[in-house]
Amino acid sequence: MPHVVELRLLSLDNNPLPTTLGYNSYALFLNILRNSCPEFASELHETDGPKPFTTATILPGYQKKMSSIPETQRQLLLRLTFLTDEVFAQFLKSALEWDNRELQLGSARFKVEQVHLVDMDKPQKNFCSYEELLSAATLEHNIALHFLSPTAFRSEGKRNVLFPEPELVFGSLLNRWNAFSPAKLSTELQQCFSSQILLARYKLETGMLNFGNYQETGFTGRSSFILDDKLSEQQSRAINALADFALYGGVGAKTTMGMGQTRRL
Amino acid sequence: MPHVVELRLLSLDNNPLPTTLGYNSYALFLNILRNSCPEFASELHETDGPKPFTTATILPGYQKKMSSIPETQRQLLLRLTFLTDEVFAQFLKSALEWDNRELQLGSARFKVEQVHLVDMDKPQKNFCSYEELLSAATLEHNIALHFLSPTAFRSEGKRNVLFPEPELVFGSLLNRWNAFSPAKLSTELQQCFSSQILLARYKLETGMLNFGNYQETGFTGRSSFILDDKLSEQQSRAINALADFALYGGVGAKTTMGMGQTRRL
Repeated sequence: MPHVVELRLLSLDNNPLPTTLGYNSYALFLNILRNSCPEFASELHETDGPKPFTTATILPGYQKKMSSIPETQRQLLLRLTFLTDEVFAQFLKSALEWDNRELQLGSARFKVEQVHLVDMDKPQKNFCSYEELLSAATLEHNIALHFLSPTAFRSEGKRNVLFPEPELVFGSLLNRWNAFSPAKLSTELQQCFSSQILLARYKLETGMLNFGNYQETGFTGRSSFILDDKLSEQQSRAINALADFALYGGVGAKTTMGMGQTRRL
Repeated sequence: MPHVVELRLLSLDNNPLPTTLGYNSYALFLNILRNSCPEFASELHETDGPKPFTTATILPGYQKKMSSIPETQRQLLLRLTFLTDEVFAQFLKSALEWDNRELQLGSARFKVEQVHLVDMDKPQKNFCSYEELLSAATLEHNIALHFLSPTAFRSEGKRNVLFPEPELVFGSLLNRWNAFSPAKLSTELQQCFSSQILLARYKLETGMLNFGNYQETGFTGRSSFILDDKLSEQQSRAINALADFALYGGVGAKTTMGMGQTRRL
């Protein structure tokens, strides 16, 4: 069952927030997990293919670019999503045993100030089973997504694709859904993403995420999609379920390391 | 020889500026031309394929969206570019005979307040031969473009492509260059646009342009491209020349009716 949790972190010193945020949220997540379940943590780290969680550090309000965090910023959101009950349960166990110790992101120390169940702007359920996502999905023709952290897609070569092409956005969600959901969706759905979902509007901008040895470019902002009238009710419902699932699943590459955090508007 | 001219227009009444700006700049341009050279104007209007001019009405400063012009706005830029000496000469003749009469855009009346040779922010030559564009082209690896008015590309179907994909941006410039320049560029250049020009960064947003019976969506904003090191000096020079030519040629669809006005940054 997908879950999302946001920890509001308050910095305990004047050390600058880490610029290598991409890597740091992943490291912190594994650190907490390793504390109580070292074997599970290693297993997770070594898994190939889609991982059942995403992590990102995001400035409160989602307003500012992650790449240019002012040094005086003292608050940060650690946004975690879980795609299976197992990884959520293990994290919860570790979190309970963590005993409110300090968290370390780069050289900066933090304490957890608040735990949010998703963001305050648009309250959404912080957990929802795959079956519920599907049965509660609407048949809306207009789907708007907000890409909270830099989002990109791997193309066949080495380049990142920097636009939310419908087939890449929904293809990524479909892959992740089918990797973890007991209620699989037909992979034939993929064929209608490029022909029957139209990108209608957007306001997007690229930004960089520093990973220490290298940087990744991605886009943040909003885009809206229109579903073709010719889609069957079943297809339309599945696409709406995938859009709702974006909150948990994230979109595109490196979602375990700060990229692709997304929510439906 | 490509030319660009900007007329700063001052409105003479309190009538709202036309929201169907896309169509109006084209109509005004043809009106002026028809005044002195009715046959040439008809011929131009009926030409299939790329036309040797572009028109757009743009708010001074290029800051605001064309789709949401405040009713109190009293200044407007009429931006005209000419891709052949013939069309420029005919327009000049008509303009001289126009005798400072009022201009009409929709129901709003204007007078010409100033004539600019390109914009004041970054003075560029207002005319330049195709040969000069080519011989003066640099070998820069980083090319930034500013899309001043909504820009879009026609895809094979009916949809507009709403992203500045390198092959579409430079492909559009290459087609227009070869349609009007005596110094043709190799059409083989097209092949390296997708593989050897990388879209690196952007800040873009979609907007609508009203054409009366229908609307067109396009994007405005900035994007930067990086040229691959593997490009030959000749290829690199041609691509830089095309980027310089964007000022005159415009990019994408409906450049005669307000879309695709572009300049290199």
